[in-house]
Amino acid sequence: MTGFSDPIVAAGVAGLPALYASGVSPVDVTEAYLARIERLDPAINAVVELDAAGARAEARASARRWAEGKARSPIDGAPIAVKANIGVEGLVHSAGIKAYARNVAPVDAACVARLRAAGAAILGTLNMHEAALGATNDNAFLGRCTNPHRAGFTPGGSSGGSAAAVAAGLCAAALGTDTMGSVRLPSSYCGVVGYKPALGAISTEGVTALSWTLDHVGVHARSAEDAALVARACGVGEVAAAENRPLAVLDLDGLVTLEPAVAEGFARTLDDLTSAGWRLERLRIEDLDLGALRRAGLLISEVEGGIEHRRALALDPEGFTPELRSLLAWGARQTPARLAEAYRLLTETRRKILVTTAPYAGILTPTTPQQAFAFDGAIPASQADLTALGNVLGAPTYALPSGEANGLPLSLHLIGRAEGATQALAARLSQALPSATVPEAFR
Amino acid sequence: MTGFSDPIVAAGVAGLPALYASGVSPVDVTEAYLARIERLDPAINAVVELDAAGARAEARASARRWAEGKARSPIDGAPIAVKANIGVEGLVHSAGIKAYARNVAPVDAACVARLRAAGAAILGTLNMHEAALGATNDNAFLGRCTNPHRAGFTPGGSSGGSAAAVAAGLCAAALGTDTMGSVRLPSSYCGVVGYKPALGAISTEGVTALSWTLDHVGVHARSAEDAALVARACGVGEVAAAENRPLAVLDLDGLVTLEPAVAEGFARTLDDLTSAGWRLERLRIEDLDLGALRRAGLLISEVEGGIEHRRALALDPEGFTPELRSLLAWGARQTPARLAEAYRLLTETRRKILVTTAPYAGILTPTTPQQAFAFDGAIPASQADLTALGNVLGAPTYALPSGEANGLPLSLHLIGRAEGATQALAARLSQALPSATVPEAFR
Repeated sequence: MTGFSDPIVAAGVAGLPALYASGVSPVDVTEAYLARIERLDPAINAVVELDAAGARAEARASARRWAEGKARSPIDGAPIAVKANIGVEGLVHSAGIKAYARNVAPVDAACVARLRAAGAAILGTLNMHEAALGATNDNAFLGRCTNPHRAGFTPGGSSGGSAAAVAAGLCAAALGTDTMGSVRLPSSYCGVVGYKPALGAISTEGVTALSWTLDHVGVHARSAEDAALVARACGVGEVAAAENRPLAVLDLDGLVTLEPAVAEGFARTLDDLTSAGWRLERLRIEDLDLGALRRAGLLISEVEGGIEHRRALALDPEGFTPELRSLLAWGARQTPARLAEAYRLLTETRRKILVTTAPYAGILTPTTPQQAFAFDGAIPASQADLTALGNVLGAPTYALPSGEANGLPLSLHLIGRAEGATQALAARLSQALPSATVPEAFR
Repeated sequence: MTGFSDPIVAAGVAGLPALYASGVSPVDVTEAYLARIERLDPAINAVVELDAAGARAEARASARRWAEGKARSPIDGAPIAVKANIGVEGLVHSAGIKAYARNVAPVDAACVARLRAAGAAILGTLNMHEAALGATNDNAFLGRCTNPHRAGFTPGGSSGGSAAAVAAGLCAAALGTDTMGSVRLPSSYCGVVGYKPALGAISTEGVTALSWTLDHVGVHARSAEDAALVARACGVGEVAAAENRPLAVLDLDGLVTLEPAVAEGFARTLDDLTSAGWRLERLRIEDLDLGALRRAGLLISEVEGGIEHRRALALDPEGFTPELRSLLAWGARQTPARLAEAYRLLTETRRKILVTTAPYAGILTPTTPQQAFAFDGAIPASQADLTALGNVLGAPTYALPSGEANGLPLSLHLIGRAEGATQALAARLSQALPSATVPEAFR
């Protein structure tokens, strides 16, 4: 992402050590982000709860470490915020649900503890779609979060606050969670990198579950390099291996309808990649039904989410919106055979795609069939149809900014295989793609 | 495996091209195996149905290709047999269940089609535990299959016929299936290599399902090299990457009770590996409950297997043994919440192990807590407790022969991460382990 006038914000994560070497201190960096949050967040409502005192203390400790040549990691001193379903010691752990308004996290989630151990300054928690079950981030309890690229437009969800905060330069990077696309979808709408590592690559301990089958923790950042640095600090361990196989471009004909701007942008991206020497091969996967897969994923999320929240649902039903209550109640009414068939569709789709795509280094699609849309319009049903493939596979996946259309971001979706090789692929692809532009009011 | 006097059998899979170069023909190879089956199978009952004519035709075609320098793959001409739940065109596809006694496969399973495309001569189908749901291979319909190492002893299961046939030198290699350990467990008891590639690495199309969540197709062979060659012919695509991380030795204290001979053999193997320069680190995974995991895996298999067989159960209940009927009926009586909790335990265990073992190239345990046992003794409940971890993870795994105790084989279990790196690890480990001995009557 290019266009921030403040060199601190422009440095993202990877550029910070060079700034420290030039005399900027981690304290300056945290102060710069805290000041931007105060000034700019009211326009988008991405931040839920700040821990300014805690972040400042961590920044001071980081400054001492850098001064002594004892930095703990490349992200030591980077100000990072996390989605409100990720526990941060002493802050409200609501998952965007009013019933948990007084649920203060007693300890950090495992991923937050890892970030702190790597030296990050944890700024606080970010807005999200209620319970992570939905993709508009129009949250009645936390308030609507807005896309920094256009007032009145959704940032996407469920990690809408995370993507919006990164796009608006309110933190160096953010953590989100992704059950059917909740990191990559808002990253697509907000023009930032969304990186969902493989299932289990980042621990979900201390994260409110929506679906233990499909949940992943992921990273929102302004570059693929930043995202990989933060993911490694969270425990993503595999190193890159040489990868010389071609990329498969999934044939979407009959699978999903792309908005014209998305279809045109995707075709342009493929042309650019081919010109740059990438080997791309169109791949048809037979009998893939993205709508059926979406319904299966939703059903599983409704059943598993219903189990996760059953105590709170019994104690404080009014603490859930009627829409969410009705989704979770639907899950509870399913038969074992119907539930088993939903798991079956997921697993058999996973097997089929793994077998079909074995010769390829990864799969390319647009990240979302549409760009960000107005809150007062209809909500497209297919928003997560492409991202959900990454959850079904449990594979490492990226949303990579790929230019703009009509003043709104476009995004390329990469579904990889091995973790390290996918990080390397994403970094190389990024270099061949037009970078996203910072929304004007946030430069 | 060493000790076969016939150079054709001693050549396994990888040694065949050198024999062809020295004047032996693929026709001689297939004839040698057909003659051994006729002479030696009556003692163990590993073979269910032979396709001698088909195998001979394929051997003749292979001979022409080698003569013309047009071999299709390194396994062109290798005689391979498959478990009776894998469809072979024109042969009975029973999955060891009497209800399917007249169910002739109309086409080859995807893995068999791949083997034929690579030039293999498909010999026929092999004995198995009824429906692949059990591990003794004491099959009332197909007859009991016996361990070639000792009369009256189980070969293990469910792919007992596959492991026994490879150990007895009745085929160059065999395919099996593995839901909680059904390739690796009989490989352990029979002293052969069992290789279960990652979930989806070999297609399960055309294979009778037990559990679509846990089923994998795998390979039984006499060396890790042979197993990798056959797996690659079946579509396992990933190539090896450099791997410099240590191996984790799972701390089994309180998790499972090892027979003294297995515990002593495993300790000896670890000593040998350490002496040979391997970096091994003992790893404790907290809150791992192998018994609970086994019950969850069985419950899921009973529910999913019940769905797979529901038509036959309704039409011909007497075609299933009362034991199998009762297991499948138990599955059908579960509530959705109980089933969801079983899936949950699997997924959360998978996440936990992935997070905990990220720094390691792989995990080592014994393959089975016990050695092969007598049919007339008690059946240990924990037989698949260690192998099941590989199915829960969906990771590539190996059973590697590691010497003998009391005249019966011992086996080392390797749970890897990336497919290619695991193949390379297994090959290197094999070189450091004592090779298995061919049972006397089959030399």
